[in-house]
Amino acid sequence: MTADEADGKRLELARLAMDLIAKRGSAVTRNELAAESRSSRARIDEIFPEESDLFAAVVELWYSHDIEVMERVVASDLPIQRKFYEFYAQRYMRERERFEEDPALFALYVELGEGHFEQVRGYIDLADHYLTELIAQAQVEGFFSGLDIDRALSLINQMLIAYTSPQVMLMISHRLHEEKLARIIDTIFAGLSAEDNGSSGVNTLRLASS
Amino acid sequence: MTADEADGKRLELARLAMDLIAKRGSAVTRNELAAESRSSRARIDEIFPEESDLFAAVVELWYSHDIEVMERVVASDLPIQRKFYEFYAQRYMRERERFEEDPALFALYVELGEGHFEQVRGYIDLADHYLTELIAQAQVEGFFSGLDIDRALSLINQMLIAYTSPQVMLMISHRLHEEKLARIIDTIFAGLSAEDNGSSGVNTLRLASS
Repeated sequence: MTADEADGKRLELARLAMDLIAKRGSAVTRNELAAESRSSRARIDEIFPEESDLFAAVVELWYSHDIEVMERVVASDLPIQRKFYEFYAQRYMRERERFEEDPALFALYVELGEGHFEQVRGYIDLADHYLTELIAQAQVEGFFSGLDIDRALSLINQMLIAYTSPQVMLMISHRLHEEKLARIIDTIFAGLSAEDNGSSGVNTLRLASS
Repeated sequence: MTADEADGKRLELARLAMDLIAKRGSAVTRNELAAESRSSRARIDEIFPEESDLFAAVVELWYSHDIEVMERVVASDLPIQRKFYEFYAQRYMRERERFEEDPALFALYVELGEGHFEQVRGYIDLADHYLTELIAQAQVEGFFSGLDIDRALSLINQMLIAYTSPQVMLMISHRLHEEKLARIIDTIFAGLSAEDNGSSGVNTLRLASS
């Protein structure tokens, strides 16, 4: 098997695994994959030496659209506000599509992801990496002034978690909308800085009157 | 039993139920409550005619601190930015305390709440009600211009979900901090309006280049 053949076979088996997950409504093992595919167990073990390698291939396929979006947005010549919007909107709308197509299957993937968080972690880190590039570019243009990049990253991640977290999608999908996403990104561009505007202006948490 | 006695007994039994939930790590039925309390099953049925009435009393006790905070903040004479901050910070810090004290028990309550969402819903609606009052006051002072109250409410809820959702607490508690909360509220006061700042300025979602 050449490296290309192995990659192609790996992708084909990951797709089949996702079909089986959808059909059964549960996770799929290499044994079950062998039974449903035309491949021998030995061949499958060659491609996925551990069960976790099969899940890693499924995770990779799940996130392939997101990664493509992030790469394209970062490399594009859109104005920075538009880059931010596309960075979130295209991923959010694809997730919403998946959710609406089959909410139970979407919930199952969330559960599987929570059970294999180490394999999902890499994709979250990758999204942080691309977002860091966008933040650096925005800062060159004068936005998010006074904040170091890590702090800006953390604040932006928190303000937009409703549009990136599949768990939050499960909770409030009916309240999410790309127009609201646009308003939130506009708010961040208009308002995010290190400046203290008085919300925590006094040190005490006691109330002036009660 | 006078109404006051019944209220006192209801509170006492709800506290006992929470102790039992913590001890066992699982939900508690009226039968189990009767076995552990000095009250007869008949007396417990008088106070909680249905299982759901027992859970409602537990939910009420769980949220009693939050409700007290919201009432005090809305009635206070703090500047509006400080009101927003206290409205979120005092509830968030109490939740964090509960989470850090016993993460597994906290997760159990999240699970119980998800299983009885109709009873939790009332408290979410109540928080929306109080937040609406704060938004109306902020708008009188010129903030959040051009947005109708429901839209402002939805946007603010989404930008701050990391600090209100116990599910999000379970996911990213280590990334949350009251200083970040203050920056997010400052961002909302500085930046939230109906104004289009260009993030979704063109209708197409296609990228200018890729």
